[in-house]
Amino acid sequence: MILPQRRSKQMKIENLVVGGGAPVVVEGMLKQDIKKFDTSVEELRNLVREGCELVRVALPTRSTVPFFKKLIAESPVPLMADVHFSWSLAREAIASGAPSVRVNPGNMRRGGEMRRFAKEAQDAKVVVRIGANSGSIAENNERLSADEVVKRLSSRTLDFIKLFEDEGVTTLIVGAKSSSVSETVSANRIIARECEYPIHIGVTATGAGKMALLKSASAISTLLLEGIGDTVRVSLTDTSEEEVRIGRQILQVLGLRRFSPEIISCPTCGRCKVDLQRVVEEAEKRLFPLPGWLKIAIMGCVVNGPGEAREADLGIAYGVKKAVIFAKGKKVKYVSNISALSELIKILNGSNFDGSKG
Amino acid sequence: MILPQRRSKQMKIENLVVGGGAPVVVEGMLKQDIKKFDTSVEELRNLVREGCELVRVALPTRSTVPFFKKLIAESPVPLMADVHFSWSLAREAIASGAPSVRVNPGNMRRGGEMRRFAKEAQDAKVVVRIGANSGSIAENNERLSADEVVKRLSSRTLDFIKLFEDEGVTTLIVGAKSSSVSETVSANRIIARECEYPIHIGVTATGAGKMALLKSASAISTLLLEGIGDTVRVSLTDTSEEEVRIGRQILQVLGLRRFSPEIISCPTCGRCKVDLQRVVEEAEKRLFPLPGWLKIAIMGCVVNGPGEAREADLGIAYGVKKAVIFAKGKKVKYVSNISALSELIKILNGSNFDGSKG
Repeated sequence: MILPQRRSKQMKIENLVVGGGAPVVVEGMLKQDIKKFDTSVEELRNLVREGCELVRVALPTRSTVPFFKKLIAESPVPLMADVHFSWSLAREAIASGAPSVRVNPGNMRRGGEMRRFAKEAQDAKVVVRIGANSGSIAENNERLSADEVVKRLSSRTLDFIKLFEDEGVTTLIVGAKSSSVSETVSANRIIARECEYPIHIGVTATGAGKMALLKSASAISTLLLEGIGDTVRVSLTDTSEEEVRIGRQILQVLGLRRFSPEIISCPTCGRCKVDLQRVVEEAEKRLFPLPGWLKIAIMGCVVNGPGEAREADLGIAYGVKKAVIFAKGKKVKYVSNISALSELIKILNGSNFDGSKG
Repeated sequence: MILPQRRSKQMKIENLVVGGGAPVVVEGMLKQDIKKFDTSVEELRNLVREGCELVRVALPTRSTVPFFKKLIAESPVPLMADVHFSWSLAREAIASGAPSVRVNPGNMRRGGEMRRFAKEAQDAKVVVRIGANSGSIAENNERLSADEVVKRLSSRTLDFIKLFEDEGVTTLIVGAKSSSVSETVSANRIIARECEYPIHIGVTATGAGKMALLKSASAISTLLLEGIGDTVRVSLTDTSEEEVRIGRQILQVLGLRRFSPEIISCPTCGRCKVDLQRVVEEAEKRLFPLPGWLKIAIMGCVVNGPGEAREADLGIAYGVKKAVIFAKGKKVKYVSNISALSELIKILNGSNFDGSKG
């Protein structure tokens, strides 16, 4: 399927490739204070286990830098120092060995200090992420309209790109986040049009619960399906592990990456003669965890059931009393509705079935 | 903010306006068998209470039609008959008083029967939804590639539009659903470009749990933020009430409609000195339900806290020990972190605060 794609320049943070057609990166961020070093190491390991490929770490004060340096030594994935307000702190992050540093154009001044940082970043081949946020672009107690937020987020980002380029720094990742989905989408559409750097996408301050998932998926997916976005972070008022899981799931539902098996199942309606919600729950319990990637369809009636079941790697299309089981596009068995799930699992566990190729 | 917008023709289903710049409609569908009439009436009422504006009802057999007729009489919102395979059943739906009928171009034949249905639909001013699904477009046991699914979904829909127009029926709502996000987006991009009818959007067979939410939000938001979509249904392997709630939430996170108060809160990081997740949970308990619409920001540090808190109707920006409370863009109070939430609630309940205008 031809989806639009914006081809960005490719950056490398240690061994991690970002942009230029590389798989979209799943980022995370530590929620622990890094001075609680042991719990931070544990959080980092949990993130990596969940599939996080780049971990951002807040360095709010000078006293956090030694802990950050120790964490770099412990980490199996590259770290990004997150610095606000102070170029000298950003320079200390570089000195401590950070392969990447995020700076916020909303709260970092231009001038000599910035140039010194740029020079040191260039010498150390550090990737600089220019990350603007809707919460830090207003000045002097202004309250901005949505249009002004979009304009400010994009122009600040583009200004910073220009300033860094003028100093010879072209190892950049850029992007802007708002707590509003439409502002986030609009600002990054502008940034994507005006530069060729990889774009980091996400929504900031989404809140908690389902609303937060919907905000993140809405903005990230809209941009990715327009071809914009090389690295994502889902930010939730929830655990950092959950942020990584949801980030991966968004990439998977867009078909951009495949991490885990997927169950397709219908919403059910007056046609459905089985308790499909219960069947799906049972299937999740009995099927997962599964190695590799596999699409399994569990469908409640004859309208779309056989079609979806045929398209999946394995599928059940329930009927009034009998169900049809499909494997790799072929009908393999008619069975009673009651025994269908067990039959599907038998096929899955059979030596002839190879689902791992998806 | 200038977001693209596709201007569709406007349709009316009883008093419900769809398309042509009207607010995007939230649809639902009954999951009960309509022959279980009392439980169906109860389900319908629950959907309406959750904010559902148009309810689709499956009519799998002739014997369901009398129940459908009775349900029309009971319903405070317009109903749409969902018919597959049989034009004569679709004609019976019209005869029973259905203000709208959905037909599936994947399983309804062309020919004389279709023309008779079109004539009767025109006479009765019925709105016909042409709704194609990925599960019912393959023929003779084909297995389609993603490209073929997109092509088939869009061409079948456009063919049916042409056939109905040839019979004089121009009260149409159209749209295609796939169980794949990118196929759904691609097919509806084509349909939107090729016709001027309102478009119904949703993802079919999303499955259960968070993955299903992410799929729905991804496709629906991508299309809506491109200006495509006049009516949505979220389809989940979950209750029909939940489908309606999530549908409304997606429209709200896009800023297209406002139904309920919204809490903005940050993901927290090493800078945050309060247990923000717990504060947000407590805020949700103490603040909701709130009448009207209101944006409340609960932010953990000084980086983006004051900015987001100022933009919201009410906000807390926590610091190391002290928090600042904002109301309608102005700092109103410095308080201890511990008492911040209570202070915010006092302001909200005060007679001087009018948040209902959002």
